[in-house]
Amino acid sequence: MATGKINVSVENIFPLIKKFLYSDHEIFLRELISNATDATLKLKHLTTIGEAKVEYGNPIIEVKVDKEGKKIHIIDQGVGMTEEEVQKYINEIAFSGAEEFLDKYKDSAKDSGIIGHFGLGFYSAFMVAEKVEIITKSYKDEPAAHWICDGSPNFTLKKADKESRGSEIILHIADDSTEFLEEAKIGNLLSKYNKFMPVPIKFGTKTETLPKPEGAKEEDPAPTQEVDNIINNPVPAWTKQPTELKEEDYKGFYRELYPMQFEEPLFHIHLNVDYPFNLTGILYFPKLTNDLSAQKDRIQLYQNQVFVTDNVEGIVPEFLTMLRGVIDSPDIPLNVSRSYLQADGAVKKISSYITRKVADKLSSLFKNNREDFEAKWNDIKIVIEYGMLSEDKFFEKADKFALYPTVDGSFYTFEELQEKIKANQTDKDDKLVVLYASNKEEQHSYIEAAKAKGYEVLLLDSPIVSHLMQKLETSKEKLSFARVDADHLDNLIKKEDTQISKLSDEEKESLKTDIEKTIDSKSYTIQLEAMDSNASPFIITEPEFMRRMKEMQQTGGGGMFGMGNMPEMYNLVVNTNHELVTEILNTKTAKKKERLISQSLDLARLSKGLLKGEELTKFIKRSYEMVK
Amino acid sequence: MATGKINVSVENIFPLIKKFLYSDHEIFLRELISNATDATLKLKHLTTIGEAKVEYGNPIIEVKVDKEGKKIHIIDQGVGMTEEEVQKYINEIAFSGAEEFLDKYKDSAKDSGIIGHFGLGFYSAFMVAEKVEIITKSYKDEPAAHWICDGSPNFTLKKADKESRGSEIILHIADDSTEFLEEAKIGNLLSKYNKFMPVPIKFGTKTETLPKPEGAKEEDPAPTQEVDNIINNPVPAWTKQPTELKEEDYKGFYRELYPMQFEEPLFHIHLNVDYPFNLTGILYFPKLTNDLSAQKDRIQLYQNQVFVTDNVEGIVPEFLTMLRGVIDSPDIPLNVSRSYLQADGAVKKISSYITRKVADKLSSLFKNNREDFEAKWNDIKIVIEYGMLSEDKFFEKADKFALYPTVDGSFYTFEELQEKIKANQTDKDDKLVVLYASNKEEQHSYIEAAKAKGYEVLLLDSPIVSHLMQKLETSKEKLSFARVDADHLDNLIKKEDTQISKLSDEEKESLKTDIEKTIDSKSYTIQLEAMDSNASPFIITEPEFMRRMKEMQQTGGGGMFGMGNMPEMYNLVVNTNHELVTEILNTKTAKKKERLISQSLDLARLSKGLLKGEELTKFIKRSYEMVK
Repeated sequence: MATGKINVSVENIFPLIKKFLYSDHEIFLRELISNATDATLKLKHLTTIGEAKVEYGNPIIEVKVDKEGKKIHIIDQGVGMTEEEVQKYINEIAFSGAEEFLDKYKDSAKDSGIIGHFGLGFYSAFMVAEKVEIITKSYKDEPAAHWICDGSPNFTLKKADKESRGSEIILHIADDSTEFLEEAKIGNLLSKYNKFMPVPIKFGTKTETLPKPEGAKEEDPAPTQEVDNIINNPVPAWTKQPTELKEEDYKGFYRELYPMQFEEPLFHIHLNVDYPFNLTGILYFPKLTNDLSAQKDRIQLYQNQVFVTDNVEGIVPEFLTMLRGVIDSPDIPLNVSRSYLQADGAVKKISSYITRKVADKLSSLFKNNREDFEAKWNDIKIVIEYGMLSEDKFFEKADKFALYPTVDGSFYTFEELQEKIKANQTDKDDKLVVLYASNKEEQHSYIEAAKAKGYEVLLLDSPIVSHLMQKLETSKEKLSFARVDADHLDNLIKKEDTQISKLSDEEKESLKTDIEKTIDSKSYTIQLEAMDSNASPFIITEPEFMRRMKEMQQTGGGGMFGMGNMPEMYNLVVNTNHELVTEILNTKTAKKKERLISQSLDLARLSKGLLKGEELTKFIKRSYEMVK
Repeated sequence: MATGKINVSVENIFPLIKKFLYSDHEIFLRELISNATDATLKLKHLTTIGEAKVEYGNPIIEVKVDKEGKKIHIIDQGVGMTEEEVQKYINEIAFSGAEEFLDKYKDSAKDSGIIGHFGLGFYSAFMVAEKVEIITKSYKDEPAAHWICDGSPNFTLKKADKESRGSEIILHIADDSTEFLEEAKIGNLLSKYNKFMPVPIKFGTKTETLPKPEGAKEEDPAPTQEVDNIINNPVPAWTKQPTELKEEDYKGFYRELYPMQFEEPLFHIHLNVDYPFNLTGILYFPKLTNDLSAQKDRIQLYQNQVFVTDNVEGIVPEFLTMLRGVIDSPDIPLNVSRSYLQADGAVKKISSYITRKVADKLSSLFKNNREDFEAKWNDIKIVIEYGMLSEDKFFEKADKFALYPTVDGSFYTFEELQEKIKANQTDKDDKLVVLYASNKEEQHSYIEAAKAKGYEVLLLDSPIVSHLMQKLETSKEKLSFARVDADHLDNLIKKEDTQISKLSDEEKESLKTDIEKTIDSKSYTIQLEAMDSNASPFIITEPEFMRRMKEMQQTGGGGMFGMGNMPEMYNLVVNTNHELVTEILNTKTAKKKERLISQSLDLARLSKGLLKGEELTKFIKRSYEMVK
């Protein structure tokens, strides 16, 4: 038996890094700037605790592109490295310098925001560079060092005459990566990954207009000067305390995040927790439309102000991925599978913390400014309804502030609604029947009929509302929802008293036979009802159950399998108490009877939006004749 | 000055592999089965060329899950390894065994389908295992070896008493990865990644029913036997020659690929090229709906029968990502950025090869069975139209077979259409005017009016067709498209002869004043026209340019910025030759005049789908009165 140590052949580690480590080459810049930031913050920390006896000053990081020389320079004014440290930190791959540093200054370093991946990230430089140089001078009183490596594992290390503190990384860009020599490309990358990093980053200069000197003439041009072009905001809003920020600051930060977004957010939620996990951030509720999928993936995830991704699936509950904003947490594991993320305890806690904060914010908006909350309801309801469907804890809280708008623009909570309608809309089996419309225009005549009876009609028009109704019906007792065109009103809310029919049973039988002769009974089930004589003579209805199942099928499952493709089912309700119906019954000529029935059916279909195409054209032609 | 070699510290390589190498832990199984497949194919190759003097037989790979013992076994019957080879290939990370092998047997190995990543993939085992064992016996006459490593860089290596040729990998699953001890999970992974790998893979057993023995009674149960459960098809259709395959084979393979898909594909395209790049595959045209985004990402990318991804963005041209099927090519670089993919020469060639093959197939379908091509047109047009818009080379080819259906169900190529309509639909400026409808039902009355004049009306209803019209108008000369409701017909196709108006200029003036009194002129621009007396008295039209720009804005850009949100613009065309219009003019009582105008406008709005909500309810009520 032999024992031994697995050996890693260095010849093969570079291609490995180049090929596998990062699927996206562009992140080399993020990694190198992260290192530069770490080196700067390290120095800040060491000066603060008195370990480094130098002036911290106002250090910046500079990025320079030398297109002609095919080079990119990244220059910091941080701790720098001695020759010995280069040996230790650069020549030993995967030796985590930051880890050792953190061990040494554990408690005092905790809050200074040092990113823990110094070391490995540096080698990502070889994804785009054929040769890399480091010229570095430590804050300690030692000569500067100059390290050069051509991408083979061989390096040279010599003294340099750099006088100023800090490190300069020089990338000699390889021929297959010349895209990174374009100023615009680097500018885009800096703005994607480094927009909010904590040390100012200079990229070129810009011209600034100065105030005119006193006594200057109107036509004199204002004087200008060249200043550093700082591409980042080192102190973004989410790193501040809510008490330091005004409403304008939050709106301003939204514009920083989404410069191409013209609409203002509706409101924000400031996240700030440090136990049992560390998380800061600001979430915004934007105006949402009914197209759910288009609005996802706008939340940006950062770790210590470094942009990581805009895919927060698994971290933020699904229903909140429609929000916008920033989450910054060093406690979210990266590069792991989704199933791992979902099982991870810390991530679960983060997810439920965010859910709770959102629910609390909504609840306080509702309580403190109900009018404003109602005005915003239609823009935010989709998130709230989705959340009520998918997270039980959210349902419990939201049930108290979720609003149910009526077609007339009133807004009720469920409890208020119940109170309001229970006297008039409880049926003989003691069930509360909530009437609703999904479209004020299309269902206008049905809505009017319900209002004429003193019923409240809700306007429930979001795409997932059929699922929510289903959930409310099962989680609350003796409750049912019915769309205004699901049946005629006396059937929708059945009460003890029944209308008396003007027609005898024989007359009804005769009427039914007449109608069935004219109307295709496959399309409509004919239903004779004794209704108010002022109600329409013919009404087409669409039973609630089938229609809702179909809708649920069409909006992301639920309902019953295969129902999404079932044909629509309609009933033709004939009001036996309407005088037109009496006229139909009493008309003697078959032709006139048929004409009356057809015209009435056409009008009923028009009312339900079913008269189309050729039939509509014919109807219109007939009607022009009648106008004359 | 010092020179040296960068040193990789092995203590840190394992966490590195675990954390960074693969973002998805589940791929360990793919990697290990790939290795087992390589070892098997290697043996096949060596026996074929006479290098290995053993019987190749019918080797399989077996995967076993031992939930209780927390182990997964992967057993192959391939080349195996001697102790010396274990030292060389396993203990030296990133030493590519396959590379050396390929170098040695370069030409003869070329076609035996050996995957080039032996070596590194093995270490992915440590993403899920806390300890890994290899028990392996080479095809060479040497004792078996047993290697054990606990995830630290320390290993032990000893002799083993394994008698059969091949390797067994034993993974001792770590506590954070117990999900991989579920049979169902492993079953899913095998079917995701290994469904078409070239060596049979056994996963458990299944019960097979045998034919009843002769003389068995009706009620006797059929005998059964336990047989190996082989989860893969080692010779999937795309690895065969088109000449070996029948139509049923292609359909059968479609069902293998998409078992949950009930609809059959419309047709297939077999891809097969080995110079200047290697690519095989089968693409299918499924029935497509108008929801573009839902249908993407169904093409699977393989490399030598190993599943890689179902994201083929950058490899297949955008417009073809709506197809389904398989592409297998070892020449597509993986783990690279999209911008790199797009710039890569080989990938560009692959992409244009696929485009060409698809165009050729469509062209031959069109030529060989036009009737069938027409029947399928509505299901495939979206791909073809999208392709014509986005790829000029495809446009050139598709212009000869793209079809333009009429509302009556005829199908013309553009050339045929031109021939058919040029006599009747060329206007006085020598411009060919193509009339179309986007919805047969909604635009029914307008279509009828156009047909009454002998015009052909196309039915163009795909979501991007407005962009295609724009492209056709600019790429062909003297051509314009107009929707049937864009203006009244005499204006849409202006000819030399003009209709004579029954009304004098004074009468027109007076009529216009009357109408303007009743109708809100902000909603409609009133336009008096001398038309056929049989045409409708009032017609609402919607100018082509504005409407099309709006549509283009709404379907993925183009058009003019900001137009997507402009309000609709309508004209009210009044037919001065219609007798109802004369009646309006001659009516003396203001009230009756107003009623005539309102009712006519309502009917015109109904015809255009603009009469809704309260106005419709009122119109219906009025109409019920008129019925009586």
